[in-house]
Amino acid sequence: MANSSTFIKDEEVSQDPQILLMKAHAATSSIGSATVIVAMLEKTGTLKIASVGDCGLKVIRKGQVMFSTCPQEHYFDCPYQLSSEAIGQTSQDALVCTVNLMEGDMIVSGSDGFFDNIFDQEILSVINESPGTDEAAKALAELARKHSVDVTFDSPYSMEARSRGFDVPWWKKLLGAKLVGGKMDDITVIVAQVKTVVIPDDEGSGVELEKVGGEQLAAAGVASTEQNE
Amino acid sequence: MANSSTFIKDEEVSQDPQILLMKAHAATSSIGSATVIVAMLEKTGTLKIASVGDCGLKVIRKGQVMFSTCPQEHYFDCPYQLSSEAIGQTSQDALVCTVNLMEGDMIVSGSDGFFDNIFDQEILSVINESPGTDEAAKALAELARKHSVDVTFDSPYSMEARSRGFDVPWWKKLLGAKLVGGKMDDITVIVAQVKTVVIPDDEGSGVELEKVGGEQLAAAGVASTEQNE
Repeated sequence: MANSSTFIKDEEVSQDPQILLMKAHAATSSIGSATVIVAMLEKTGTLKIASVGDCGLKVIRKGQVMFSTCPQEHYFDCPYQLSSEAIGQTSQDALVCTVNLMEGDMIVSGSDGFFDNIFDQEILSVINESPGTDEAAKALAELARKHSVDVTFDSPYSMEARSRGFDVPWWKKLLGAKLVGGKMDDITVIVAQVKTVVIPDDEGSGVELEKVGGEQLAAAGVASTEQNE
Repeated sequence: MANSSTFIKDEEVSQDPQILLMKAHAATSSIGSATVIVAMLEKTGTLKIASVGDCGLKVIRKGQVMFSTCPQEHYFDCPYQLSSEAIGQTSQDALVCTVNLMEGDMIVSGSDGFFDNIFDQEILSVINESPGTDEAAKALAELARKHSVDVTFDSPYSMEARSRGFDVPWWKKLLGAKLVGGKMDDITVIVAQVKTVVIPDDEGSGVELEKVGGEQLAAAGVASTEQNE
């Protein structure tokens, strides 16, 4: 992520999030692997996204989720990852997409540890009740963290697990039990809102991410990068 | 949709699906309203999408849904629509996004009547078992139609209805009943697969939608449009 920040204005990156991932990955010497998502906002309002694995990004407009990335995985709970080893995925495996943003759009981006522990409807409620992006990011991270340690919460993660055939042992099922609970994991969430601004050195107007609020409970392979000139 | 086909190579449209929607809508004299989705594939492999309402488009890669549009609605079961009346939405309300496609990607696009009656996992299974796009489109439409008239099928539509607070009367709930069933509606689905081809009059290669198979059980505001030169 630090490398992504460094390369964001690199000439070769040329506002292409997939090239950004490639360069940032190549410059990384740490051992290990991580899922990753990057997003770059153009002055025209186009948000360019590249994602490897099960981080996510959602766009909220007029109180509903208007756009959402999909997770990539090899099988349940084994996401695509960029790795220090040759066995991992590369930027070529990224899902690359764009979405045209509008004034007022809210962007919620986070790690799998976030989206595994919170429902869209909860995200919408928190966003709706928060006075700003800082407060929203903090409230969202806290709610997801609370759910993650709640063994009775029927989380998106446990619902997905059951739909894939995972569940409690048969004798517990007979007693009416089912697989529930949050998922303990790193939780990162970034909230931003789109605002149109007049750019002094430019003839037109541009779009920028205003008041980017980030609440990072633990390090994770997630970042929201912005591109404004 | 007929107007969209007519305008696909219009100079003003200039490969912008939102302008395509605007021109097609303006040229429509029929009374009524409809949800709509259009998608245009560029030679580079970028699929450009504009959607108003709850039609949908999914990209399937390596056996999983890698990309999916989100429905837009005013409230449950009341989608955004282009209309002959001034009260409807316009192309300016469209969700506009792009996704970079790869060789072998399957595109499944359909009306809300399709996605309300079939689960992603079923779409993946049918796609996996079908020898080609024609057969996949026919099998998908037939499965969704079957579900739509099945009052015992716990459809995506009935699950969504319950999650929004709709259900059977309280006395039926006491008897263990819940709101289930398919949704009777027009069902349209279009299946396409991406194939890289060498374009004779060009120095490079391009991407085209091969073997576009469409099964249309009833007219609906849905089309998959392709752009190849």
